[in-house]
Amino acid sequence: MVKKYVFGTPIETDAVVKEIKETSWKDDIFQKEGNAFHYLLKTDEIVYGLGENVRGMNKRGWRYVSNCSDNPNHCEHTNSLYGAHNFIMMGDGANETYGLFVDTPGTVTFDVGYTDIDRLSIAMENENYKIYLIEGQTYQDVVREFREMIGRSYIAPKWAFGYGQSRWSYETADEVREVVREYRKRDIPIDSIYLDIDYMERYKDFTINRDSFADFENLVEEMKKENIHLVPIIDGGVKKEDGYDVYEEGKENGYFCKDENGEDFVIGVWPGKCCFPDMLNDEARRWFGDKYRILIDKGIDGFWNDMNEPAIFYSEKRLKKVFDKMEEYKTKNLDVNTFFEMTDLIGTISNNPEDYASFYHNYKGKRYRHDQVHNLFGYYMTRSAAEAFERYQPEKRILLFSRASYIGMHRYGGIWQGDNMAWWSHLRMNVKMMPSLNMCGFLYTGADVGGFGADTTEDLLLRWLEFAVFTPLLRNHSARGTRKQEVYRFSHIPKFSSVIGARYQLLPYIYSEYMKAALRNTMMFNPLSFIYGKDNLARQVEDQLLVGENIMIAPVCEQNVTGRVVYFPERMKQLVFKDGIIEEGNIFEKGFSYVNMPMGTVNVFLREGYLLPVAKGGKCVEDIKFEDLKLYSFGEKIKQYEYYSDDGETTDFDMESHIRILK
Amino acid sequence: MVKKYVFGTPIETDAVVKEIKETSWKDDIFQKEGNAFHYLLKTDEIVYGLGENVRGMNKRGWRYVSNCSDNPNHCEHTNSLYGAHNFIMMGDGANETYGLFVDTPGTVTFDVGYTDIDRLSIAMENENYKIYLIEGQTYQDVVREFREMIGRSYIAPKWAFGYGQSRWSYETADEVREVVREYRKRDIPIDSIYLDIDYMERYKDFTINRDSFADFENLVEEMKKENIHLVPIIDGGVKKEDGYDVYEEGKENGYFCKDENGEDFVIGVWPGKCCFPDMLNDEARRWFGDKYRILIDKGIDGFWNDMNEPAIFYSEKRLKKVFDKMEEYKTKNLDVNTFFEMTDLIGTISNNPEDYASFYHNYKGKRYRHDQVHNLFGYYMTRSAAEAFERYQPEKRILLFSRASYIGMHRYGGIWQGDNMAWWSHLRMNVKMMPSLNMCGFLYTGADVGGFGADTTEDLLLRWLEFAVFTPLLRNHSARGTRKQEVYRFSHIPKFSSVIGARYQLLPYIYSEYMKAALRNTMMFNPLSFIYGKDNLARQVEDQLLVGENIMIAPVCEQNVTGRVVYFPERMKQLVFKDGIIEEGNIFEKGFSYVNMPMGTVNVFLREGYLLPVAKGGKCVEDIKFEDLKLYSFGEKIKQYEYYSDDGETTDFDMESHIRILK
Repeated sequence: MVKKYVFGTPIETDAVVKEIKETSWKDDIFQKEGNAFHYLLKTDEIVYGLGENVRGMNKRGWRYVSNCSDNPNHCEHTNSLYGAHNFIMMGDGANETYGLFVDTPGTVTFDVGYTDIDRLSIAMENENYKIYLIEGQTYQDVVREFREMIGRSYIAPKWAFGYGQSRWSYETADEVREVVREYRKRDIPIDSIYLDIDYMERYKDFTINRDSFADFENLVEEMKKENIHLVPIIDGGVKKEDGYDVYEEGKENGYFCKDENGEDFVIGVWPGKCCFPDMLNDEARRWFGDKYRILIDKGIDGFWNDMNEPAIFYSEKRLKKVFDKMEEYKTKNLDVNTFFEMTDLIGTISNNPEDYASFYHNYKGKRYRHDQVHNLFGYYMTRSAAEAFERYQPEKRILLFSRASYIGMHRYGGIWQGDNMAWWSHLRMNVKMMPSLNMCGFLYTGADVGGFGADTTEDLLLRWLEFAVFTPLLRNHSARGTRKQEVYRFSHIPKFSSVIGARYQLLPYIYSEYMKAALRNTMMFNPLSFIYGKDNLARQVEDQLLVGENIMIAPVCEQNVTGRVVYFPERMKQLVFKDGIIEEGNIFEKGFSYVNMPMGTVNVFLREGYLLPVAKGGKCVEDIKFEDLKLYSFGEKIKQYEYYSDDGETTDFDMESHIRILK
Repeated sequence: MVKKYVFGTPIETDAVVKEIKETSWKDDIFQKEGNAFHYLLKTDEIVYGLGENVRGMNKRGWRYVSNCSDNPNHCEHTNSLYGAHNFIMMGDGANETYGLFVDTPGTVTFDVGYTDIDRLSIAMENENYKIYLIEGQTYQDVVREFREMIGRSYIAPKWAFGYGQSRWSYETADEVREVVREYRKRDIPIDSIYLDIDYMERYKDFTINRDSFADFENLVEEMKKENIHLVPIIDGGVKKEDGYDVYEEGKENGYFCKDENGEDFVIGVWPGKCCFPDMLNDEARRWFGDKYRILIDKGIDGFWNDMNEPAIFYSEKRLKKVFDKMEEYKTKNLDVNTFFEMTDLIGTISNNPEDYASFYHNYKGKRYRHDQVHNLFGYYMTRSAAEAFERYQPEKRILLFSRASYIGMHRYGGIWQGDNMAWWSHLRMNVKMMPSLNMCGFLYTGADVGGFGADTTEDLLLRWLEFAVFTPLLRNHSARGTRKQEVYRFSHIPKFSSVIGARYQLLPYIYSEYMKAALRNTMMFNPLSFIYGKDNLARQVEDQLLVGENIMIAPVCEQNVTGRVVYFPERMKQLVFKDGIIEEGNIFEKGFSYVNMPMGTVNVFLREGYLLPVAKGGKCVEDIKFEDLKLYSFGEKIKQYEYYSDDGETTDFDMESHIRILK
């Protein structure tokens, strides 16, 4: 059951698509106090949700602030990441479970037992917001009800479930060719190469750098023949440059965000000075979305939207302020207080709240200062592309995912989990974030495997891949200045080949589970508590997941070990994927067991009585024979499996014939 | 067996105190190539050592650079922390074990399977260094042999094993009184309060801020009556201020480090402009050390030496460079490359390598550019104090520990584990760092409990304390601007009282083990592999330790759990310390078991056949009855325990009567 409460005059976000009648507020499990809501936490109560955030699946013990932020060095004390996902779940997961969604594009703080270890407090920055309170029996009930409210999740093309290689940046067409050649010659499967900012002419959206990608159209064609999709990046800011048609059109038609005087607001991002298209404005959004066609017409069928929190390196105003202040410091005898003032000043040039409060949108016929609608920018940028694709090629799926997001955007595209680091702790975070994102509607997602920032290591990349072969988005990506991390650069290449190969054997199951999660509003990645809710030990496990309901995974997220302790909430059988061969391992009884999992193997734990369909694999998704499956199972009674399979290209998701029963 | 190899003309560090004959180099297990040494790593070989560093006990899979660095935001990809501990161990730990110590005050890089996952490479920045290669049977043999070479570790007074409360800063005498009052009124044990930089007059070493600590001498006296020791901080830089006697004396006598023109080198640290006493110069060191007497004469009996990497906020030269460059940027149309150049420029003002190459020491009669002897600065600062204490009060132990260090300094003082963060991962790091530091001679050590930077949480602080009650240095410390973390500020104070109380019950054992480790050159904190070297599972466990040889601990380092899986390498019995009561828990058989460890309890796992002496506890160390012990044990044959106990104040460590046999 969903109750909807409206406070003040909320700004519409289009997050909720279902008609729900408004109710008036009465304190019950939540006590209202100003713009805050308090809830008493029971000792062992778990708090789930909040999508893209640091820390555990159980969000207790920290304060999270929904405020889309570009923070590439995020650590445990980070309060805001790239997304704003205001959905949270409490209760026992068995008899009384609650979900709460705060629908407002402004800042929301979730204090989950931080200030007071026994209390959850949710506070809104201003008095205009909607609250949806869902009551259900189990966690899964509440998730399903919430997901029905917010509408069907974006569905990616099947090829986008292949392995992708990325780097900031492959700077020339030949470099792209070389990477593909290195993979192909070693028979390591791959389906896509990502193009970071340098494919553009001086970082101008929808342009091609013709010095380094002279034959871009041919490259796209040539790659397509090899079953490689090129996936270019699109940034949230448009370069301010006379004669650049996108800029000129935006300027002429008034499509850019304005400053307080009605002038185009100018900020610095990759290309230097830029303007932000007013993604919230219907007309501007339609115009910007249509631009993607420039690349689609060159054969491109996938995009990633970046810098759309939106990230601001600097504003002209701020820069001037800094220079003026530096002038002052120069003349002073710099003591330590003034010194830190100075370094702080420089440290807060980028993404400054003052700048976010200095420009304006025209949204649904009204003028809004950006900070009031901040969390919608990435969402509406991605929506602009998705709506254009729908106009242009309504029957074809196009890959689309974003860095920034808000709930509602899940209908238009996936997300990657932001600019992470080559840290073992970020591998762990990747594991824990999957179910949190699923709860919020984000199904097509994954992290930058191996880590984006900082130097990776061979073992970290291998272990990360061993987990990531289960995530819909499977992309190895790294930043400029860090160690190169294409898998063929390391010592034990066959191990990488073995792990990535397993993805292509597992894909029928992974894709089927993804599609069912999207079509039925269920979880693709389940915390153990979602299936074994009455098992107190299972409820505390955060480094194991059920992929769908048939298999459990227990990723090795620690350095220098050859296995780990796994909690088996029931009898399960180990399947070891190694060098294309699937070895049926031990059967483990309920309880804790140490399981050997050497690097270079992918380990699956099959539930007793459940099926796992496995294909022969392939060098790309196109190669995989989705109907030539081997079925693994053990136990006496085997539950039949609803297998979803379609062409992976068109949008006729709902045809009944896509489901067939395996047994 | 130790072999000593000398290459070039190494700078003497006084790290090694034992006379060892020089041998000439021949490639054997190590291949020399230029200034680098390569060693092939076997698949499951563990690499131990490197003291204060990030990542696991097993150092494989990363690159560590010995270069004392002030890095308060250290993450997994950090290469250098505050100490430079060039001792590393390889081999099987059972039959053939190797230790290697590189003795050079310059930069050393340990590439432990980073570049090539199967190879250890050790590279020196320049061609002058000594290598000591130790061959032994077990890890413990090699550690003992190394520790004998480098001399007996610093021994702290017994009161310094009590719980200490710190904050940057308690700004007034009344604030200090209030903190003590809050602890005492709740009967939470405490022995010391730390004074951070604000007790000084404008951060001037060896001064008192008489506005806020008018009656400093009385405060010290008053606190002493309550069995509270005040422990002031001393910084590595001396304020450049006319009329300030320490500065005037240093200037007059030429005791400060010089720039290339022979002028006193000026840098900015806490007080603003400062000079560095030339800690490496005998005369300057004696002079600086004697200054501690100013505070000793006021009743102080403990110090912590800070900022002695040495940390440089800025140099005058660099600041000018930055201002000039800003002038340039101002006139430019700032594109994104120049923008990042600018932020990088500001980002590298502090601790800049160019600055470290711009000043000079007079060391053992020769002039050295600082970067050649960089890693000795903190060591020699601490030595300066320790040598003065030896002159002044040779029979009395004075608490002394440092932030920066080099092997050799372990004879003069302890270290704290630098400016950490309120992260669960830094609790884990604290656990893993203990044995690594013990190997390198550092016994009196601990981390800032609860985390120095970032906001702590109640559960993190509690869990951290549950571990830290075993570490010699037990100090709750936090930075300005973060959440206050005195334990009485949280919701469940009795839990804190219970945990800290356990420290005072366990102290007879902890102190005895510490003293024996110091006097016998053994490990106080053992990795499981040191005791159960043939057990392959034990060898991979990094989140459990043996404290001495009688008990094992398995700290809970994860949020939102009520227990954890523990590996029992043999039969052990759980002892639960809760609210002053010791409950004899389950006996666990060899293997993995889940153990319930609710917050607020301290859990000890006693080995079968071993003793644990426990006292009644107390409100301060002075209260503890070290001879009124209850002995815990289980099993048929109980090994007798060599119990070390002394007055904890004087330096007659070696008296045989301090040891008695418990059985």
